[in-house]
Amino acid sequence: MSKQKPSIPSGTRDFGPVEVAKRNYIINIIRSVYELYGYQPLETPVMENLSTLMGKYGAEGDKLLFKILNSGDWAIELKKKINAASISQYNDLILVSEKGLRYDLTVPFARYVVMNQNEITFPFKRYQIQPVWRADRPQKGRYREFYQCDADVIGSNSLLNEIELIQIISDVFSKLNIHITIKLNNRKILNGIAEITGMPDRIIDITIAVDKYDKIGSDGVKEELKQKGFNDDSIKKIFEIILMHNERILFGGLAAKDSSNINNLNFLKSIDGYANSNIFQKGVEEMDYIFERENDLISNNVKIKFDITLARGLNYYTGTIFEVVSNDVKIGSILGGGRYDDLTGIFGLPNMSGVGISFGLDRIYDVLTELNLFPENAITVTTVLIIPFDTECENKAIEYATQLRRENISTEIYPDLQVKIGKKFKYADDKNIPFAIVIGSDELKNNLVSIKNMKSGEQKQLTIEELITELNNDIKSYSDFSE
Amino acid sequence: MSKQKPSIPSGTRDFGPVEVAKRNYIINIIRSVYELYGYQPLETPVMENLSTLMGKYGAEGDKLLFKILNSGDWAIELKKKINAASISQYNDLILVSEKGLRYDLTVPFARYVVMNQNEITFPFKRYQIQPVWRADRPQKGRYREFYQCDADVIGSNSLLNEIELIQIISDVFSKLNIHITIKLNNRKILNGIAEITGMPDRIIDITIAVDKYDKIGSDGVKEELKQKGFNDDSIKKIFEIILMHNERILFGGLAAKDSSNINNLNFLKSIDGYANSNIFQKGVEEMDYIFERENDLISNNVKIKFDITLARGLNYYTGTIFEVVSNDVKIGSILGGGRYDDLTGIFGLPNMSGVGISFGLDRIYDVLTELNLFPENAITVTTVLIIPFDTECENKAIEYATQLRRENISTEIYPDLQVKIGKKFKYADDKNIPFAIVIGSDELKNNLVSIKNMKSGEQKQLTIEELITELNNDIKSYSDFSE
Repeated sequence: MSKQKPSIPSGTRDFGPVEVAKRNYIINIIRSVYELYGYQPLETPVMENLSTLMGKYGAEGDKLLFKILNSGDWAIELKKKINAASISQYNDLILVSEKGLRYDLTVPFARYVVMNQNEITFPFKRYQIQPVWRADRPQKGRYREFYQCDADVIGSNSLLNEIELIQIISDVFSKLNIHITIKLNNRKILNGIAEITGMPDRIIDITIAVDKYDKIGSDGVKEELKQKGFNDDSIKKIFEIILMHNERILFGGLAAKDSSNINNLNFLKSIDGYANSNIFQKGVEEMDYIFERENDLISNNVKIKFDITLARGLNYYTGTIFEVVSNDVKIGSILGGGRYDDLTGIFGLPNMSGVGISFGLDRIYDVLTELNLFPENAITVTTVLIIPFDTECENKAIEYATQLRRENISTEIYPDLQVKIGKKFKYADDKNIPFAIVIGSDELKNNLVSIKNMKSGEQKQLTIEELITELNNDIKSYSDFSE
Repeated sequence: MSKQKPSIPSGTRDFGPVEVAKRNYIINIIRSVYELYGYQPLETPVMENLSTLMGKYGAEGDKLLFKILNSGDWAIELKKKINAASISQYNDLILVSEKGLRYDLTVPFARYVVMNQNEITFPFKRYQIQPVWRADRPQKGRYREFYQCDADVIGSNSLLNEIELIQIISDVFSKLNIHITIKLNNRKILNGIAEITGMPDRIIDITIAVDKYDKIGSDGVKEELKQKGFNDDSIKKIFEIILMHNERILFGGLAAKDSSNINNLNFLKSIDGYANSNIFQKGVEEMDYIFERENDLISNNVKIKFDITLARGLNYYTGTIFEVVSNDVKIGSILGGGRYDDLTGIFGLPNMSGVGISFGLDRIYDVLTELNLFPENAITVTTVLIIPFDTECENKAIEYATQLRRENISTEIYPDLQVKIGKKFKYADDKNIPFAIVIGSDELKNNLVSIKNMKSGEQKQLTIEELITELNNDIKSYSDFSE
């Protein structure tokens, strides 16, 4: 076999021990909070049938699906069925590929619910933490393989679900020590605006433009609407209504200093035409339910902000829309979500309302890194390295290691006797192991061990029983004083 | 969009809440024991370059790789480069596919070690618990997507690593309450046998045949050797040596009742030609090291058995070979592993010795199911379901739920007020929720909650503080008395 310089596909990543430990620190917090609220785990296959995936993410999404080559001799099959000269026919994809990699967790969830609708007890609260794949052009911070951490409840219209999801968001970011703002909006309010502007069918164009308000300002939004074919009169109408001559009051994102969410919401009721739009009123009513309970939902590290510019670009949200940003690190949204009324309809099960959220693992990781918030004990795997000096000491090391592990103290024995002692201590340093124990003939004779604190350099001799007591205390204080 | 009846690719599986909980019960035990011994987590991408994967698993393995279609217009590329009429050229795979799904965790591990050799501190102890894919024909118990749970240490020749892996095996199956036999052999002993038989280059054929001894008996092994082209004289020689006229003594698997591992090992030393085979002696010496420490390694639920018929069909093992079977359920091996001397050589890093094991998650799951060994609390996610009767009670429910969750008691509120009470209790039953709390106007007035034990049917009224105390006790006793 020829020697090759190995590499991994662009847009994918290896996660070494420290990165996995840090990622699991985040994932375990998300999982434990999901379970505290009764969400149950679901895992779906990495491979889905293309018939399940195609057409669910728009034409652009179809192109970004990773497709898996059929097993067996697909080339022969192709030859049999297609005139090899007519290359355009090659795109008859099913001949060479019938499966693809999961593109998100929402479509597989909908597919699962429909397939198992007779066994599932509704409302069905599930969480799912698995990787997804997109054949995007790789770039800084954008990967082709990345994790999503979703929770959805399906089969319940109650806004109590929205309340619980806000509590979940609050709990997770409290445990992570990240200060956040939860931005809220409601798709029905956006629909209402489109309706009373007289252009209900152009809601998508309006929301896409309005969604960019934070980035491109009011002039940018106007320009974009113009390019989309809106005439000056239409644009004026939209801005009359959604800005009401005073951006600082209506735009939740801008108004927070001056105005409560409830006040901003009440302001909407004064808009000309509000009384005639049922959907507008319904949207405001739904937001009312949430903001009435706002005080129960806010904790030290969490602000909630009504943001009428929030649309999240996704076409399937029909009610509440969620987005979370860090108050300290500008990195874009670290969570998104919303309510959708008909997710399973495409698979033949209509009228199932659902609402869900999705934590952005990679960005949360970046926020924790930038704010230096990963606890030291989250990344320390081994507590003790035992270094025996000869075969006799090695047998003693096996005995001691067994005792330590029985106390749930993670322990390694340096396995190769002939390696120099300096290299063994370096091993402990490199692996961030806080304590090294040396067993030589002296220690063996006196039934003692020599323990070295790898951070302070402090050394002393103890019996194994004293050692276990000390370690249990030291591990505790070590965790307490971690950076 | 047309309605479609959704399905998943054959050989793949959805794991619903109960299955995930049970699988995680196993995975968490394996992970915690790996970490107790200082093994650190690694995660590699699901997609690897085909150049990394091809040629590593034999010609048959290459066919069983799931290959991913290149993004973009691969068909046009194909047309450009290949005469469309010459169909045989279509198998010039790289034109349409350059990536594949991970086939095992060992090759990606080797690839990672070589790519990161300058940052890694050796010996490198890593564990990896991730799915792999094989385009095998799906059948009962054989899947195209399944998890492997590997631990390997690379960069250490010490047999202490073998000792630790045996301890890990013992600890994991003790925690799972599965009674097992660890079968051990050493590839060097098999090589030694081939050598003193005078056919050192036919070791693969010999071991493949001998490996089937348990299934097809001595006549079957003889027949297989014949078909492989061994003449009667060679077969006689092999059997003279490996059976030594007495299967019951030499074959570890058969001899356990009569003879200790050390005795079986000593027996090998008496074989004619042993003194002349260095590799044979080295193999026996390595096994000696392990069996001398055998008493430290055996626990109540673990037997260790020298089994000279064990070869595990894999070509890359060069030293110790491990296999584990359940003593109570006949299901084949539930763990395999061994030592390999040159795993990273194919990627340009020679002479790195490693040893590793791999737990068979699906089969362990089946053993636990058949023996009814999954603990009840492993599959209960939610502890309390709160059922409020009206909007006022719902607000109280939110308050109580927050208190319960603060005590780490997993709590749900049934979200839809209009649903009939019977359906709400059925929800608790279906989800295996042990306690239901009802809040109506009476309870609200008296500041009490009505709690129902869903198993016993017992009901009583309590304050929320009394409830929390009771629940903390009840949850404990509930776990204790679980089936």
